[in-house]
Amino acid sequence: MEDHVYKKIEIVGTSEKSSDDAIKTALVRASSSIKNLRWFEVIDTRGSIKDGEIEHWQVTISLGFTMNG
Amino acid sequence: MEDHVYKKIEIVGTSEKSSDDAIKTALVRASSSIKNLRWFEVIDTRGSIKDGEIEHWQVTISLGFTMNG
Amino acid sequence: MEDHVYKKIEIVGTSEKSSDDAIKTALVRASSSIKNLRWFEVIDTRGSIKDGEIEHWQVTISLGFTMNG
Amino acid sequence: MEDHVYKKIEIVGTSEKSSDDAIKTALVRASSSIKNLRWFEVIDTRGSIKDGEIEHWQVTISLGFTMNG
Amino acid sequence: MEDHVYKKIEIVGTSEKSSDDAIKTALVRASSSIKNLRWFEVIDTRGSIKDGEIEHWQVTISLGFTMNG
Amino acid sequence: MEDHVYKKIEIVGTSEKSSDDAIKTALVRASSSIKNLRWFEVIDTRGSIKDGEIEHWQVTISLGFTMNG
Amino acid sequence: MEDHVYKKIEIVGTSEKSSDDAIKTALVRASSSIKNLRWFEVIDTRGSIKDGEIEHWQVTISLGFTMNG
Amino acid sequence: MEDHVYKKIEIVGTSEKSSDDAIKTALVRASSSIKNLRWFEVIDTRGSIKDGEIEHWQVTISLGFTMNG
Amino acid sequence: MEDHVYKKIEIVGTSEKSSDDAIKTALVRASSSIKNLRWFEVIDTRGSIKDGEIEHWQVTISLGFTMNG
Amino acid sequence: MEDHVYKKIEIVGTSEKSSDDAIKTALVRASSSIKNLRWFEVIDTRGSIKDGEIEHWQVTISLGFTMNG
Amino acid sequence: MEDHVYKKIEIVGTSEKSSDDAIKTALVRASSSIKNLRWFEVIDTRGSIKDGEIEHWQVTISLGFTMNG
Amino acid sequence: MEDHVYKKIEIVGTSEKSSDDAIKTALVRASSSIKNLRWFEVIDTRGSIKDGEIEHWQVTISLGFTMNG
Repeated sequence: MEDHVYKKIEIVGTSEKSSDDAIKTALVRASSSIKNLRWFEVIDTRGSIKDGEIEHWQVTISLGFTMNG
Repeated sequence: MEDHVYKKIEIVGTSEKSSDDAIKTALVRASSSIKNLRWFEVIDTRGSIKDGEIEHWQVTISLGFTMNG
Repeated sequence: MEDHVYKKIEIVGTSEKSSDDAIKTALVRASSSIKNLRWFEVIDTRGSIKDGEIEHWQVTISLGFTMNG
Repeated sequence: MEDHVYKKIEIVGTSEKSSDDAIKTALVRASSSIKNLRWFEVIDTRGSIKDGEIEHWQVTISLGFTMNG
Repeated sequence: MEDHVYKKIEIVGTSEKSSDDAIKTALVRASSSIKNLRWFEVIDTRGSIKDGEIEHWQVTISLGFTMNG
Repeated sequence: MEDHVYKKIEIVGTSEKSSDDAIKTALVRASSSIKNLRWFEVIDTRGSIKDGEIEHWQVTISLGFTMNG
Repeated sequence: MEDHVYKKIEIVGTSEKSSDDAIKTALVRASSSIKNLRWFEVIDTRGSIKDGEIEHWQVTISLGFTMNG
Repeated sequence: MEDHVYKKIEIVGTSEKSSDDAIKTALVRASSSIKNLRWFEVIDTRGSIKDGEIEHWQVTISLGFTMNG
Repeated sequence: MEDHVYKKIEIVGTSEKSSDDAIKTALVRASSSIKNLRWFEVIDTRGSIKDGEIEHWQVTISLGFTMNG
Repeated sequence: MEDHVYKKIEIVGTSEKSSDDAIKTALVRASSSIKNLRWFEVIDTRGSIKDGEIEHWQVTISLGFTMNG
Repeated sequence: MEDHVYKKIEIVGTSEKSSDDAIKTALVRASSSIKNLRWFEVIDTRGSIKDGEIEHWQVTISLGFTMNG
Repeated sequence: MEDHVYKKIEIVGTSEKSSDDAIKTALVRASSSIKNLRWFEVIDTRGSIKDGEIEHWQVTISLGFTMNG
């Protein structure tokens, strides 16, 4: 059985709706160019505020994917 | 163009509904006395438990706002 | 008045729905065998990805409960 | 039942006697102007040295208190 | 000579008297059910406040003990 | 001799010139309203970029000052 | 499909041979009482020294395993 | 309004002149191949020493830029 | 003399043999597409377990390499 | 006015009495060979346990002192 | 080819001019007694404040040097 | 029974063979000048790369030893 190698990159997803949705936004964008996405880890959660309300959720995630052989 | 100065404070918002809602509760309270809120960063997420269920979500955030000139 | 002692354990809850729901899944499982759960703290938030979408949210929490006298 | 909001501030208490006493010194000073102090967390413990002995214990704590409605 | 294996658990001791006493309270409770306690490490020191004074010291420690063969 | 108590606050200074100048900008602003500033600690150093060049240095510092008796 | 729940515990394995072997020693001991071990994470690596040579490697790992339904 | 997605990469800039200049060196190099650089964060600051003097400042920064749609 | 610029990426190498071998596996894979690899730093060491034994060592490393001029 | 240079070293003090006393033990020992001790910072607090009670408090401190000109 | 061994020590350099200059002050002092200084890493950056202005920059660095054979 | 005092120093061992061997190289060198070495802790593991292969493993360890009375 072979020994896989993975690469990890950091992406910041944003959303006006929720913290979970910001992660999904990042995944949609990343999966358009990267095959074999395997896992994510939340690095930090932030947001911009306008008129006392959340304008955009900004969630930084680390994304792991299989490197092609 | 001027160089702005910002202040950061730590607030703990709570909610019976969700982690995102606890952050919104903190923002509503903070915006009643602070103008020019600009961004937040989640510091940690906790909660109290009662009878095996989440009683209150408790989310500590750092809040940044513009200091008046 | 007595001085209580608490124990803390780490549990990873998973969910196909949301990060908050993964925490609730962990609490349901833990409360079936542990009485007196008192609080939780989120340690990290991860997830597995399949076909570019989140397969399972995986949230590690620390759980505190009262030790029996 | 209502959702409370708390504020956290950092104070450095000092004492010639002990590390615990430095925390109490900070609490006495803080409670003179802040009502509803609820909890503290020790951030770090330091001290100044003079002639090979501890001159002042310096303990930085984070103080949480209820924000008025 | 054999290679030992140790287990580490997290306990929160509380005390109305001092931070050191909160650790001792945790040890007394843990030693009633665990043999072969070997060492502890302080993870964090907190406390609850009532009427501007420390109500309970709360010290989280990691406890190491020898696993039976 | 008395036991002093200090408060620490977080400020973000900005500057178009340099990282050191961003700290000085924060100090000028803070000293206009706070007497008895005693020390600062750099928390993090960031910056905004425009057309491939640094637009503003943004340095977050923790500021310690003596609380009045 | 069901949502699994995992528990994580900390074990310190020791070995006179190597750091990797200390991890294996911990796994052998843990697997004698815990079924469904799934993954480990190295927390820290230490060792005792005698006469200028390594006496025992001591590697602390976090062990994750599936909780029975 | 759309939800943007950003990517973050780590670059080490070097300079014989100053720590700030090492950051600028990294930005000049990065902006030659990446459009839409938006912000940087200093990760760590190091340097090589030769004959008791700083030979090269080495500053690791995280660079954020907008991913094309 | 010129001021070099380096890029750092994160790779996860795996191996059935040892933790050191997992790092070598990552280097072999990375060097097939990246010239001028200069250094690595271990970020974390994990592994999957099957039937009580290590199935794959998984070592995350940060890899630094010279960016072409 | 001159610019001072300080050196920092790490010492572990032990005591059978208390955590504060372990720090004092370290200072007494260090001051016998180092002049101009200026400050200390607590790095971590541990202890050995025997028969369910604390045998020795072990407190690691960082010690700062003025380097002679 | 031989395997070198390096030692790392922590020094705090101070300067009235700049953060970079505080590092240089530390290097000048260290190089007067230590040969073979090889690299430094910034641990933290602080400063004392007097009359609202920076009195002394205080930069703690870790210094690596080759141990003689 | 007396209260011991220990000193901790940081050493970087290197090796062309393995990460464990780099630690042993550091111990051999340190034990030639320091008596009473008691324990080590791995701080970080790095390495230099040449032609896509590991040139030298570089492991930073903290070394604890008993201070003479």
